[in-house]
Amino acid sequence: MSGSIYGKSFVISTWGESHGDGYGVVVDGCPAGLPLDESQIQVYLKRRKPGQTKYATSRKEDDEVKILSGVFEGLTTGTPISMIVFNKNQRSSDYSDIASYYRPGHADYTYDQKYGFRDYRGGGRSSGRETISRVAAGAIAAAILKELGITVYAYTKSIGPITIDYQNCRKEHSLNDPLSMPDPDASQRAEQYILEKKEEQDSVGGVIECIVTGMPTGIGEPVFDKLDAALAKAVMSIGAVKGVEIGDGFEVAKRTGSQNNDPFAYDNDKKLLKLTNHAGGILGGISDGSEIILRAAIKPTASIGRPQRTANKENENIEVQIVGRHDPIIVPRAVVVVESMVAITLVDYLFQGMTSKLDKIIEFYKQ
Amino acid sequence: MSGSIYGKSFVISTWGESHGDGYGVVVDGCPAGLPLDESQIQVYLKRRKPGQTKYATSRKEDDEVKILSGVFEGLTTGTPISMIVFNKNQRSSDYSDIASYYRPGHADYTYDQKYGFRDYRGGGRSSGRETISRVAAGAIAAAILKELGITVYAYTKSIGPITIDYQNCRKEHSLNDPLSMPDPDASQRAEQYILEKKEEQDSVGGVIECIVTGMPTGIGEPVFDKLDAALAKAVMSIGAVKGVEIGDGFEVAKRTGSQNNDPFAYDNDKKLLKLTNHAGGILGGISDGSEIILRAAIKPTASIGRPQRTANKENENIEVQIVGRHDPIIVPRAVVVVESMVAITLVDYLFQGMTSKLDKIIEFYKQ
Amino acid sequence: MSGSIYGKSFVISTWGESHGDGYGVVVDGCPAGLPLDESQIQVYLKRRKPGQTKYATSRKEDDEVKILSGVFEGLTTGTPISMIVFNKNQRSSDYSDIASYYRPGHADYTYDQKYGFRDYRGGGRSSGRETISRVAAGAIAAAILKELGITVYAYTKSIGPITIDYQNCRKEHSLNDPLSMPDPDASQRAEQYILEKKEEQDSVGGVIECIVTGMPTGIGEPVFDKLDAALAKAVMSIGAVKGVEIGDGFEVAKRTGSQNNDPFAYDNDKKLLKLTNHAGGILGGISDGSEIILRAAIKPTASIGRPQRTANKENENIEVQIVGRHDPIIVPRAVVVVESMVAITLVDYLFQGMTSKLDKIIEFYKQ
Amino acid sequence: MSGSIYGKSFVISTWGESHGDGYGVVVDGCPAGLPLDESQIQVYLKRRKPGQTKYATSRKEDDEVKILSGVFEGLTTGTPISMIVFNKNQRSSDYSDIASYYRPGHADYTYDQKYGFRDYRGGGRSSGRETISRVAAGAIAAAILKELGITVYAYTKSIGPITIDYQNCRKEHSLNDPLSMPDPDASQRAEQYILEKKEEQDSVGGVIECIVTGMPTGIGEPVFDKLDAALAKAVMSIGAVKGVEIGDGFEVAKRTGSQNNDPFAYDNDKKLLKLTNHAGGILGGISDGSEIILRAAIKPTASIGRPQRTANKENENIEVQIVGRHDPIIVPRAVVVVESMVAITLVDYLFQGMTSKLDKIIEFYKQ
Repeated sequence: MSGSIYGKSFVISTWGESHGDGYGVVVDGCPAGLPLDESQIQVYLKRRKPGQTKYATSRKEDDEVKILSGVFEGLTTGTPISMIVFNKNQRSSDYSDIASYYRPGHADYTYDQKYGFRDYRGGGRSSGRETISRVAAGAIAAAILKELGITVYAYTKSIGPITIDYQNCRKEHSLNDPLSMPDPDASQRAEQYILEKKEEQDSVGGVIECIVTGMPTGIGEPVFDKLDAALAKAVMSIGAVKGVEIGDGFEVAKRTGSQNNDPFAYDNDKKLLKLTNHAGGILGGISDGSEIILRAAIKPTASIGRPQRTANKENENIEVQIVGRHDPIIVPRAVVVVESMVAITLVDYLFQGMTSKLDKIIEFYKQ
Repeated sequence: MSGSIYGKSFVISTWGESHGDGYGVVVDGCPAGLPLDESQIQVYLKRRKPGQTKYATSRKEDDEVKILSGVFEGLTTGTPISMIVFNKNQRSSDYSDIASYYRPGHADYTYDQKYGFRDYRGGGRSSGRETISRVAAGAIAAAILKELGITVYAYTKSIGPITIDYQNCRKEHSLNDPLSMPDPDASQRAEQYILEKKEEQDSVGGVIECIVTGMPTGIGEPVFDKLDAALAKAVMSIGAVKGVEIGDGFEVAKRTGSQNNDPFAYDNDKKLLKLTNHAGGILGGISDGSEIILRAAIKPTASIGRPQRTANKENENIEVQIVGRHDPIIVPRAVVVVESMVAITLVDYLFQGMTSKLDKIIEFYKQ
Repeated sequence: MSGSIYGKSFVISTWGESHGDGYGVVVDGCPAGLPLDESQIQVYLKRRKPGQTKYATSRKEDDEVKILSGVFEGLTTGTPISMIVFNKNQRSSDYSDIASYYRPGHADYTYDQKYGFRDYRGGGRSSGRETISRVAAGAIAAAILKELGITVYAYTKSIGPITIDYQNCRKEHSLNDPLSMPDPDASQRAEQYILEKKEEQDSVGGVIECIVTGMPTGIGEPVFDKLDAALAKAVMSIGAVKGVEIGDGFEVAKRTGSQNNDPFAYDNDKKLLKLTNHAGGILGGISDGSEIILRAAIKPTASIGRPQRTANKENENIEVQIVGRHDPIIVPRAVVVVESMVAITLVDYLFQGMTSKLDKIIEFYKQ
Repeated sequence: MSGSIYGKSFVISTWGESHGDGYGVVVDGCPAGLPLDESQIQVYLKRRKPGQTKYATSRKEDDEVKILSGVFEGLTTGTPISMIVFNKNQRSSDYSDIASYYRPGHADYTYDQKYGFRDYRGGGRSSGRETISRVAAGAIAAAILKELGITVYAYTKSIGPITIDYQNCRKEHSLNDPLSMPDPDASQRAEQYILEKKEEQDSVGGVIECIVTGMPTGIGEPVFDKLDAALAKAVMSIGAVKGVEIGDGFEVAKRTGSQNNDPFAYDNDKKLLKLTNHAGGILGGISDGSEIILRAAIKPTASIGRPQRTANKENENIEVQIVGRHDPIIVPRAVVVVESMVAITLVDYLFQGMTSKLDKIIEFYKQ
């Protein structure tokens, strides 16, 4: 059954494989009138592009996007926006050997079980390059959010044992940091840590935090389509993510109610605020006007150079060493993917949220 | 927009409010031929029933379910199964005062923002009693899974600071434990902890772990409808959940690839296994035949007796004490809700998973 | 797979069988703030109630509706509205014989093929009484449309050979006509025709026309979700409907372009109009501001007293006579069902239509 | 909101404009293991290609399709299949004048109303060329159906006043007939009629009939997702279609029950058949094993050379003559579009139909 389509009102449909012709996404449900050209998409794609850090020996790809439809004279028309990024630097020979066995930590085995066989070249559809489609769509979602005064910002919160206290950081720092860390000192230590592990032919994981500012109140649908539930799915659907938290997340399990509840209070302008934000901006599945805060746990890159035990298709237990172009860490490049999935989800929910009140609907159609 | 409907092939549609006539669920997409009667549903509802522990002064409710459609001569007919549980012990007077202010940690404010007003009696639609509908549907899902040899089991893994090592536990213990803990000693300590906090008019949180055994390989849909993504949404949609992990979850962020990858190996019967299960039974969003393992962080009950600061609708900052029938802990009663959401999701995905391979489809229709 | 749920933004989920406990519908996605009580629903249900015409020996049912959720202090709350109509006059003995054979023109055989067995009592889920759920939901949709200045009106256009020219009719006449015909003379002739056929233990069919006034322009989604496509599905999903036309429908097949195209023109107030309306108010799948006009062909009641050839489950070809309480015509009672399905669809599309233009979305959220 | 995506289990997502870069479709949910290459798609596209008849002065396009993903070593992999057809013969100058006014019978006005402006070049998204995407996807659906022994065949049943009695025809004739008519004599008369109307700078309409053979029983979902309802939507979503009938369609309105009911009977091999097929192969929304028969009314081409009255954007009533490359008839080229939409819908429903019976599901997963 179909699984490469996401969204209800703002819907993206993605396709592509690591060593096929390329990747693409069709965005259906983008409203008319948004100024859009390829350069806006390219800014986002650049942030996930491989081969930008020194420890990476990654595949070099331009990842140049082309918009094929849905834009006329510089504005979206309201009809589907098709975008494509052609693969250029496929080297299938790198991967021919992995056809015969199941790489640990990868989807080789499960794809074989599900489909009977697989496109083994570079992981086929399960390759991390699949996120190109998400990021291209995310760039459009972010552009819509910007028009509504909403910003989605993610950064690398931890790499291995190095963790950042965001309170002491400046967002600007992460945007130019090779590890997307807003703390230059932590970034240097993390870099050192990665290089060590890389030397050991190993890889490392980390945590990404995402912060949404400017979110209106009242967005999210009870009961099953709570905003936090939707964000959890959106972020957990990214390949290497193994956990998602909203607000204080797993910490709340050790709290008491008096510690965890966020008091409401009016400020001097009689605007209602929460004095704390343990809840991460969502109450009962609906945005409360505070910052939305979520974190994702990213596993270490599964492809490592070290010898690993595994099994092949000839019923043999073997030892393998995975060679090829692999980052020792996924986290920094996944930052923009998290932003994209959050942005896409927020746009979808903002659109759905327009029908909550009858008087607003009447007003909308009265003219 | 609609948010009380869940699923794609096996779809549940829920309704009800804390102080309305009752709660219900329509299950559409249940296959024909499943033996079903009310007693099966009642077993599950009993596990989430209020007022079963000594520290609870909770509302007493029988929560008796009635099946109104979709079953004929003891078997499901394939058409929608409507189930209803009437409320009996509503005491609206308890709640009339909370109409005027926003309870911290509750959805009062966000419902007002979304809908313009709210059914303030007992939280209306945002009440935890909403999970009755989930559990009634979950009981049907569990019955289907049983026919396929699949078991979903959840338990209380931690309460406040008390955590269980499941390796040393026996599942049977949790089923009769008032806190749903499989470790009697831990359960006693947890009980002590809860009583302390209750005396302080406070509440506590915890963690629920859910384990699925017997799951076939190959279930889950790339890219957005990964099985873990779906489970994350399913579980995060439960009211008090603030975090969801699959397998080793947030721990993986501190791991290296060589620590985290699960080696494949054939056993003596040439059956392919994973030697470890850090991944929690899902690779690339698709079940790998190992146990599926997930955890949910449950926040402490938001309703506490202690004085709390908050705001009312008259633009005043006030102090409130919430009286009424409130559990000091949600965790034990949420265990069966987690099981239910997981079961419903698995059935939905098993059904969707029938169309992955053309030869299996041809075989299905050839007769 | 699920098939009793309809809609995307305004979603109805229905259940019930002819001889079960009753029928119901859950309406999810109704905006908050709509004044609603049971009497409004009852007005619609009364129009489809059995046993109201003299030729009918139909089952008598009060079809009294109860709203179980989603309404608080007389207003919808934005959460699911559950409605129920209990069956009162089931007489299962009437139907026990039909368990053994397949009634011509009914779904007995196809239900058995699909599900392996069936609830044979009165057709079970395939009974025409299923439309109770549609009409209850339709009443809510109509109430929303009314707030937006939109009216959906259907009437009996033909019965057997008797056809009405609506240009010469007055809408008011049909509302009190037992056959829902706006032409009293035609109604009398139709009545005569029905009585004749009834005497012959036969049944008759007809055509229903539905006219929507006050529809805003710009509603409908290209390409697959054209408004006319959605209406076609909505109406064709009603049990006895075998054809659906928009505007001039099948007549256009014999036309030329110059005959069929509707010229645009400004009226004296510089308002753009179409000078004719062959298109039936929809161009390119999007409402053009003219009246939306559609027609549905309704087959003669399948249950007739005449001897009919058919087959039983014992592999025998037999002759049967269907006794019981059957209308000789479905058309007049289906009028309100057509209205309901059209109203539900229009509400769903009006809600979806709010996200076509970015500037309108920005305006909506700006405050 | 999104409207260019179709299907639930077998989902197609389409994009493209008449004078953009091209057209495309992403097919998500195609099972793994189907042999597929571009030549199979090309066969279908060729049938809808413009410029193949003598009366047409249509735009010449190769409409060459490229498969970009989802196929590996000649077999579908189960992941999204992206297909693209580049536009080659856009001549935007032809269309620049139509930017200023609303063509009668076209979607110019409604697109402007919905989106605020439009891509006016050749109708943009509302161009008939949009059906390229449907046909490319339809070719895949047809290939799946073939594996299941199901054939979808459509032909031109009438053009203007010339109608065919299919009983006297041979399917083979239509496949090579320029008008897709299986009756060579009727085809010649129709051709004559078209040429006459073309000379008058006018256009003509017609009726397409579609026949499905080999359909298993039991496919279709009550209540709203009846197979006939789905087919009605599928076919009505094709641009020029104004009416859809199943089986005897509008004729049944004039029938009696005894004329219209199809008797069941066992044949000599004790196989259950219907002795007639007025119902068109669907009872209660579920396939009954007979041929599925439907018809679509196609309006005359809206673009005609004759002077027509209309309005421009400067608030003026004007007279226009539409020049350019327009077929005087859409019907023959729409035949394969009808087949495609029917095939796509049947595949989607066959996939959904696999979960009706619990024992079949158990059997599927037992191994």
